Amino acid sequence: MKLKNPLLMATIAAAVPGFGFAQEAGVNASTDSVFIFNSLLFLIGGFLVFWMAAGFAMLEGGLVRSKNVTMQMTKNIALFSLAAIFYYLIGYNLMYPLGSWSIGADETGGYLGAFGPAVMEAVGVTSDAADDYGYASTGSDFFFQLMFCAATASIVSGALAERIKLWPFLVFTIILTGIIYPIQASWKWGGGFLDSQWGFLDFAGSTVVHSVGGWAALAGAIILGPRLGKYKDGRVNPMPGSNLQMATLGTFILWLGWFGFNGGSQLAMGTVGDVADISRIFANTNAAAAGGAVAALIMTQIMYKKPDLTMILNGALAGLVSITAEPLTPTLGSATLIGAVGGVIVVFAVPFLDKMKIDDVVGAIPVHLFAGIWGTMAVLLTNSDATFMGQLGPIIIVGVFVFVVSLVVWVVLKGVMGIRVSEEAEINGLDTTELGMEAYPDFSKG
Amino acid sequence: MKLKNPLLMATIAAAVPGFGFAQEAGVNASTDSVFIFNSLLFLIGGFLVFWMAAGFAMLEGGLVRSKNVTMQMTKNIALFSLAAIFYYLIGYNLMYPLGSWSIGADETGGYLGAFGPAVMEAVGVTSDAADDYGYASTGSDFFFQLMFCAATASIVSGALAERIKLWPFLVFTIILTGIIYPIQASWKWGGGFLDSQWGFLDFAGSTVVHSVGGWAALAGAIILGPRLGKYKDGRVNPMPGSNLQMATLGTFILWLGWFGFNGGSQLAMGTVGDVADISRIFANTNAAAAGGAVAALIMTQIMYKKPDLTMILNGALAGLVSITAEPLTPTLGSATLIGAVGGVIVVFAVPFLDKMKIDDVVGAIPVHLFAGIWGTMAVLLTNSDATFMGQLGPIIIVGVFVFVVSLVVWVVLKGVMGIRVSEEAEINGLDTTELGMEAYPDFSKG
Amino acid sequence: MKLKNPLLMATIAAAVPGFGFAQEAGVNASTDSVFIFNSLLFLIGGFLVFWMAAGFAMLEGGLVRSKNVTMQMTKNIALFSLAAIFYYLIGYNLMYPLGSWSIGADETGGYLGAFGPAVMEAVGVTSDAADDYGYASTGSDFFFQLMFCAATASIVSGALAERIKLWPFLVFTIILTGIIYPIQASWKWGGGFLDSQWGFLDFAGSTVVHSVGGWAALAGAIILGPRLGKYKDGRVNPMPGSNLQMATLGTFILWLGWFGFNGGSQLAMGTVGDVADISRIFANTNAAAAGGAVAALIMTQIMYKKPDLTMILNGALAGLVSITAEPLTPTLGSATLIGAVGGVIVVFAVPFLDKMKIDDVVGAIPVHLFAGIWGTMAVLLTNSDATFMGQLGPIIIVGVFVFVVSLVVWVVLKGVMGIRVSEEAEINGLDTTELGMEAYPDFSKG
Repeated sequence: MKLKNPLLMATIAAAVPGFGFAQEAGVNASTDSVFIFNSLLFLIGGFLVFWMAAGFAMLEGGLVRSKNVTMQMTKNIALFSLAAIFYYLIGYNLMYPLGSWSIGADETGGYLGAFGPAVMEAVGVTSDAADDYGYASTGSDFFFQLMFCAATASIVSGALAERIKLWPFLVFTIILTGIIYPIQASWKWGGGFLDSQWGFLDFAGSTVVHSVGGWAALAGAIILGPRLGKYKDGRVNPMPGSNLQMATLGTFILWLGWFGFNGGSQLAMGTVGDVADISRIFANTNAAAAGGAVAALIMTQIMYKKPDLTMILNGALAGLVSITAEPLTPTLGSATLIGAVGGVIVVFAVPFLDKMKIDDVVGAIPVHLFAGIWGTMAVLLTNSDATFMGQLGPIIIVGVFVFVVSLVVWVVLKGVMGIRVSEEAEINGLDTTELGMEAYPDFSKG
Repeated sequence: MKLKNPLLMATIAAAVPGFGFAQEAGVNASTDSVFIFNSLLFLIGGFLVFWMAAGFAMLEGGLVRSKNVTMQMTKNIALFSLAAIFYYLIGYNLMYPLGSWSIGADETGGYLGAFGPAVMEAVGVTSDAADDYGYASTGSDFFFQLMFCAATASIVSGALAERIKLWPFLVFTIILTGIIYPIQASWKWGGGFLDSQWGFLDFAGSTVVHSVGGWAALAGAIILGPRLGKYKDGRVNPMPGSNLQMATLGTFILWLGWFGFNGGSQLAMGTVGDVADISRIFANTNAAAAGGAVAALIMTQIMYKKPDLTMILNGALAGLVSITAEPLTPTLGSATLIGAVGGVIVVFAVPFLDKMKIDDVVGAIPVHLFAGIWGTMAVLLTNSDATFMGQLGPIIIVGVFVFVVSLVVWVVLKGVMGIRVSEEAEINGLDTTELGMEAYPDFSKG
Repeated sequence: MKLKNPLLMATIAAAVPGFGFAQEAGVNASTDSVFIFNSLLFLIGGFLVFWMAAGFAMLEGGLVRSKNVTMQMTKNIALFSLAAIFYYLIGYNLMYPLGSWSIGADETGGYLGAFGPAVMEAVGVTSDAADDYGYASTGSDFFFQLMFCAATASIVSGALAERIKLWPFLVFTIILTGIIYPIQASWKWGGGFLDSQWGFLDFAGSTVVHSVGGWAALAGAIILGPRLGKYKDGRVNPMPGSNLQMATLGTFILWLGWFGFNGGSQLAMGTVGDVADISRIFANTNAAAAGGAVAALIMTQIMYKKPDLTMILNGALAGLVSITAEPLTPTLGSATLIGAVGGVIVVFAVPFLDKMKIDDVVGAIPVHLFAGIWGTMAVLLTNSDATFMGQLGPIIIVGVFVFVVSLVVWVVLKGVMGIRVSEEAEINGLDTTELGMEAYPDFSKG
């Protein structure tokens, strides 16, 4: 039965007054409360991050054309469900080996975690039998961490929409959530070599979560190629989303879920310092999203003379990704500016990708990869514990690992089962051709 | 002033260390905390289950045709509001008589609870004046329990959509939420005969909530008859839902709300064991939903060569219903499999109902009744306290009671006021004919 | 570094047993818990009220015509983002001067608060360095209060939809959220003259939040004028909303968020009395919404022979606004009735405004202003501390201040930059003409 890495435990022991004492003295009301508060944080944070799965689905469904909405919904609910199963079967212990590395060790650097399904504490566990009485319940930790893993796959589904086949996408999802994500996450959050050797700082995962989804999506977009007619005669052909109110809803859902994403990543709520930190994180997360949205609003007004709603939505999301690597140390003003830079990045990165003829349907790569890199480097601005190479090195290491492995997987999937639907299916829409079910059967198409 | 049943109180007293001591010693910081944690669980759980009302509305609105969406929205917001009023006026004390049974007694078996409106604790209540200082606030309990009651009615509204008249449906809602649901719920959760005599185990209500909604819907569907043209010349005529992205949103909302539904049903969060149990429940609830969705995905791929999104959505919901009777004792693997069986049930039950010419617009009966029965029996697989007859008997008793009473009510309503709209109204849609208001007035109908 | 007003602190000190003692004795587990519970209440309440921003966006987007949905989404996400920035830069300390009034004093009456951006507590703050160890973290308070401020602007955006230019609307938003709202809020919640001199009672802001949005909207609607063709040849021309399922979703979101709005306004959760009060508030808030919805359902059935969904939705919201000034002291029955009166008000106020040729697209003025006034006066029914003039006086003072200042701002904006789009833009829709982006590009317009 395994839980969290010991280094993390040591940090918490140092941070929680009376933590060591309580463990020695046995049952203690105060430590009970710390355990309850910490577990509660994971549960609240976890259901908020779960909600992001709905946010991705609404955003992506709103940004694809109406003929592909049923497929996008199918992908999103299936990817989340498969992530839940394979993170349980493989991912969780691969990510949190608790020192039992298959390759490496805490001291010299862990590289590959432990294998085996996740196991929760016994029903009605008592304090002396709890996996880590001084910290939080294993079930709450599993629940919280699973949601992060699933978010990675949701990022990919948006970028590759409207042309990828369902089943190869789902096979990739299984590999991503069961293997790729957990391995690289173990390097940092499992106490592996990026944590112990590089001193990498990535509070809630600008790199560990968002850039990973972005790299996997980039690899997929390159192998898959752009949608038919997207880049024609040297021009970029806009393919507007079918329902911008849904896309806006998705953005609001993601924004809400992000309070759990970043706030829950404080990983403890049982002390004055922890809850005050979580409060800072909530406020900063909100400030960064606002900064990103306003930056995109102003930039698109200046550049195109008209504000662009999809850019504003992606600007808010880029602001959120940007603050994710360090939502705690910035002031409200710094957080707003860090987010604003994320919003500016999106406004330039979307046309840049189009120039490269990389077709990212919802803007996932600018938002999650580019703003993720920015956010990871921005830790240097407000956290003096961060070093330039300690940030840049892991960005590159994680990027190379995820991009190369993803590329190989996509190429193999392409060779073995094919990853792209037929031209006819793409033109007529995946909903009728691949699924035989329209998302909006009652409405005439324009 | 009444709160919860005494048997439950005794259970909690046994489970909370120092509970008895604290009561004797008067004010005690630790018991204060337990009271706060327990009440907080009800509040968080309650708002999550409230959110399920929105989930049902979105799911059902997405699965009816566009000409009936305004009516479906009207029904859903009205049924929730009426449930709130009549559960307050009648239901709450009928469900929780605290030993003051109108018919029966705790010892010999309670059959009919107490009459009178719900009363909350005084403003700014102190620990010595609290209804049950060792447990939780009455207002939080009322808030939480009300949401379960309302869920029952939401289940019915989906099955009977697109042809039932508004007002008779609302009259049925009042009877269901004010009388039928509370009476049978008192048999188990109020400490009545199913609890004290049969040893029935139903953690969060696979039977007490979901099958009840399902039985009431089944009775209604039989009396009401299928939609015009649904079964014609021996064939089943598909009537696809108007907005599958909305239906997907509804499913995600329900999934989210279910964490409160099952997690809150632990009924206590003030100890290490309770919060660890809630964590198990959150993780298992999620696993079961994932299992149900994946099972329906695979089954429809195999059976129809194409995945069916509405089946996948209902598969996830069936997985959730399946785990609701026992979300605590299964391992993550067992929970996934229990949910998967629920998903398989739905895939077979939907065409089975069609063969029986029972027209259930959204699949509510397969999801809530059939998977509810499965979930209640599945308690036997992981909880050694459950007995075969202790599960099957109450399933039948509750089923016969709810089905027969509902049938009588539907027949009476049919005779007295008529329950079905005119053929013309059904063909043209309930929105324009019954309400004079289209849900999507700007869009051309296909 | 400033936090909350001292009067409030004194109230809390009186209400929290052992509060003073704990401060004298230094670190104390019990006070730690109170600090954590209080901060947690603000965080949970805050994210729920954040969610209301999405609710307003969905409601308003569903109630405007499809040609203006992109614009409505743009306005809603932009207004929230700007509110976040300007409440941080100006609003927070203007609202909570902690006795450092620019004009006035706590004793004689505060009129204008302090200037300067909000500052949160240090990272990892310890109990002895916390801004107010006996209460809650500053970041959590800022997060919570910001969401209320933003709600005010969301109210305005609905009333003025479909004809106002984006940028003047956003300039007004900045003035409203940075200056107008905080100044009048300081009069009550910052311990200013309405609190100390008038004894005004407004628990969660029927007047301080909702009527403020309503007055600002009313001033705007008068200066802006009705939509083209709305009032023609003495008749009111209905302009039905484009998506009533979205509008229903928005209402459910707002209803959910209101538990945080009213419940969080208890401002403390660390004692038995506080959590029991929050529970009462949750239950009463729900009851009032139900009462408002059912009242509108019955009234529209009686008056028009057909229930009107948009009235029912607005009835629920009016019920929520009505209970906001005093969600604690009413019984469940009183709360239901107070909400029901709100629902009745809406049914009469919507045609009344049309008779006055004031064009309020979504019914924001009836819901937030008229029901807000009702709710503020209704405090007299259940709270014996309220006085007639202590309620009516502040309603008038706040109303005159907000209405007059808003009117001046709107007139200046009209003169300086123009506030209304061209006739052509209005007829063709703001989405294509002002933004070049349709919300539903795939669907034929009816």
